[in-house]
Amino acid sequence: MIRLHVPYDLAAGAELVLDEGQSRYLGAVMRAKAGDELRVFNGRHGEWRAIVGQVGKRAVTLQLIDPARPQAQGPDLDLVIALVKRGPLETIVEKAAELGVRRIRPVITERTNADHTRVDRLQAIATEASEQTGRLDVPQVAEPVKLERLIAAWEAGRRLLFCDEAGDARPVLEAVTDGGPWAVLVGPEGGFAPREREMLRGLPYAVAATLGPRILRADTAAISALTLWQAAAGDWRP
Amino acid sequence: MIRLHVPYDLAAGAELVLDEGQSRYLGAVMRAKAGDELRVFNGRHGEWRAIVGQVGKRAVTLQLIDPARPQAQGPDLDLVIALVKRGPLETIVEKAAELGVRRIRPVITERTNADHTRVDRLQAIATEASEQTGRLDVPQVAEPVKLERLIAAWEAGRRLLFCDEAGDARPVLEAVTDGGPWAVLVGPEGGFAPREREMLRGLPYAVAATLGPRILRADTAAISALTLWQAAAGDWRP
Repeated sequence: MIRLHVPYDLAAGAELVLDEGQSRYLGAVMRAKAGDELRVFNGRHGEWRAIVGQVGKRAVTLQLIDPARPQAQGPDLDLVIALVKRGPLETIVEKAAELGVRRIRPVITERTNADHTRVDRLQAIATEASEQTGRLDVPQVAEPVKLERLIAAWEAGRRLLFCDEAGDARPVLEAVTDGGPWAVLVGPEGGFAPREREMLRGLPYAVAATLGPRILRADTAAISALTLWQAAAGDWRP
Repeated sequence: MIRLHVPYDLAAGAELVLDEGQSRYLGAVMRAKAGDELRVFNGRHGEWRAIVGQVGKRAVTLQLIDPARPQAQGPDLDLVIALVKRGPLETIVEKAAELGVRRIRPVITERTNADHTRVDRLQAIATEASEQTGRLDVPQVAEPVKLERLIAAWEAGRRLLFCDEAGDARPVLEAVTDGGPWAVLVGPEGGFAPREREMLRGLPYAVAATLGPRILRADTAAISALTLWQAAAGDWRP
């Protein structure tokens, strides 16, 4: 079943005109025909059944039928991810959407080199992954900021799960015992600088966690940490 | 620190001649010079410190110094993975090596199309990932077989964690409560056929597990399932 994220309000009987990208996807890639059924969502009004109306080269129209699922939101989980190379970064954004992250916040650390990040492209990847994974919202990808600035403006009440390679960090399943707003922080391939680790370990809302005895690449670390958080405190619990 | 997997026996004073691929990697890519230190392992004799001897274009020699870490093996965990497209399959093999899997067993299912698998290439990816992740062995990548054949020849005493999208499956952390030999089975993007699901659910050594409320791609499902198994019964436990 095709699912599309659209910016429009959703209500019974409404007719939507898809933008050129989605129209081309439906018409040329998926070969949709008038009368085909699909689903749309906008992050506010749940998921709706819709029927394809006119199929033009640059504009496909949809007719909304009725609501299929009411709006719902996953747990309040941010991913704070040090900028890594484009391939792994795009993987991380896609997987964060599948794993139910609400916000993706790229950060610049001492060992990061990050001149070339295209947030619009990352946002498009997050949107497409959200369409495919079946969620009713799309994680928001923020502009990259320096780690110090992010910490300086940290939101009161949000815990921070800090993935640390040091030996005394606890397993994620022990470090995360309660729900509420959290952020998972994954560092760059070269790790955090000693000064950064000291700063992070001194934060009262942060807890250091280990991801096993082997060295993980940044994308693996992000997926593993998000998985364990979801199983311990998120919507993977029974 | 560079780590190389070599086929040779390792003993104090031994001189190794690396093959052309590793020689080119060390000389041309890493610009190693005579006297540089690195580590080697072979899956049998632990990890050894070694010093670069001669750097030729096609042959680099190493002098073994002394053992750095004794041989050790991770938990007895297989990944049984339905063949998926090349990109995700290579990701899965790389991540399985990082996550400590001992054997990677590709399987052909009803909804698999798999003419083009190159096991030698997958084995090379597993080896490189093992070098980088710090483990002392390399997961063995098996030739693809049909799911029915794999099940018909199933090893006595090995449990099977079967990732199932059906609603009544239990979370992995509840399904896996004891160690010992296990295999994690992840299906193709289109899921298992009804006949296959019924067969799997009827196996006395199999337990069905869910990976949360969203639809995961095969690579995400494999990484998440292996992570949770390691945290529940493997070497990620405290």
